[in-house]
Amino acid sequence: MTRNNGTKVEALLFDVFGTVVDWRGGIIREAEPFLRAHGSPVGGPEFADRWRGLYQPSMEKVRTGAREFTKLDVLHRENLDHLVKELGLDPDGPELESLNLAWHRLDPWADSVEGLKRLRKRFLVAPLSNGNVRLLTDMAKRAGLPWDCILGAEVVRAYKPDPQAYRDTAGLLNLQPAQCMMVAAHNDDLAAAADAGLRTAFVLRPTEHGPEQSTDLGPDASWDYVASDLVELADLLRN
Amino acid sequence: MTRNNGTKVEALLFDVFGTVVDWRGGIIREAEPFLRAHGSPVGGPEFADRWRGLYQPSMEKVRTGAREFTKLDVLHRENLDHLVKELGLDPDGPELESLNLAWHRLDPWADSVEGLKRLRKRFLVAPLSNGNVRLLTDMAKRAGLPWDCILGAEVVRAYKPDPQAYRDTAGLLNLQPAQCMMVAAHNDDLAAAADAGLRTAFVLRPTEHGPEQSTDLGPDASWDYVASDLVELADLLRN
Repeated sequence: MTRNNGTKVEALLFDVFGTVVDWRGGIIREAEPFLRAHGSPVGGPEFADRWRGLYQPSMEKVRTGAREFTKLDVLHRENLDHLVKELGLDPDGPELESLNLAWHRLDPWADSVEGLKRLRKRFLVAPLSNGNVRLLTDMAKRAGLPWDCILGAEVVRAYKPDPQAYRDTAGLLNLQPAQCMMVAAHNDDLAAAADAGLRTAFVLRPTEHGPEQSTDLGPDASWDYVASDLVELADLLRN
Repeated sequence: MTRNNGTKVEALLFDVFGTVVDWRGGIIREAEPFLRAHGSPVGGPEFADRWRGLYQPSMEKVRTGAREFTKLDVLHRENLDHLVKELGLDPDGPELESLNLAWHRLDPWADSVEGLKRLRKRFLVAPLSNGNVRLLTDMAKRAGLPWDCILGAEVVRAYKPDPQAYRDTAGLLNLQPAQCMMVAAHNDDLAAAADAGLRTAFVLRPTEHGPEQSTDLGPDASWDYVASDLVELADLLRN
């Protein structure tokens, strides 16, 4: 596949939470027994949304330089500690540590493994996620995600949408940004990737945020490719 | 598997050049047509040994801080440029670039793929090589090496035997050094890994340097495990 100026795309870089795996369904599944055991005033869906709601603010401190780079497992744990306190729950440390690792045990969307298997025949495929190395490695091993290598925020020590996250990841692959395509279900991720010089593929994940999802229901800009899932993306990129 | 103090090993970290792949055979195979085409005064084996001979000195500049971290593909290319000049050869840039990528196309030893497949059922397996990310990724994809993730010098920006290379790699896996075991055919790599707190497994590769090999023909110290190949290592670690 070449772009108009003839630059061939060699690598596909994937957003993971929401694009490749169903983070919300996985967190609900893992949180519910915990919430029941502790008499939580809220159920799994609200718990998942509130935990995830602390995600961007916690990374923002790293992006602005207010805090040195800190891996996502640590941010997730801090955010979990904050949330359980807010809910008045009183779990012990091992319970919290186990629940925090729920992010390592998220299930892929039904098309993800097949789509990646097909795409990796033609392209180098790697996550470009804000997840840390161990999180992404555990997830891939459990779910059978056939990445060629594990890249992402922790390797380049920058959280998306910092342009360094995209550019330095291309550099690790000995590629120019234009030789890489970002694959994501999030328009803001693709906008930042495009600004950093990458090509873009939007994948529709209309239930990432549950049945009432109101964001990212379609492409906001003229991304290079738009696909309903990763299998369709493999079809589109076959030529 | 636990050590005497009860610390369980979770990850096996592998030296690659010589331990998992036959670098000398691969470089000879790729260099010979090039050397013939350019009327080289030396053949493949001498060329491979002289190119590899420049490897440690080039990394030493990074280790001492005389030079900022520079990925191995770049060091290999500088060393190749130096060697062809010394030999009075006059190849063009694309020929040199293609030959430089021979390091991405090395074949595994006969037992490596099967050994890794067995070991990854019980352990997280990753390279801890001085090779850079793209080199190790290309090699794994071509050879079918089933790494769980690609780690190594470029990710931690330190060349073995710098202790930071071992410790920071364990940190990327959320592990203490004692939860990792270094697997290598080189006593000096294992000595540095042990100093950094890792466990150690020596794998015998008596023809890495060709039929006259005089180094690393056996363990120099009481490493935790000694195996004749990676399949035997999988047998030893089964219990």
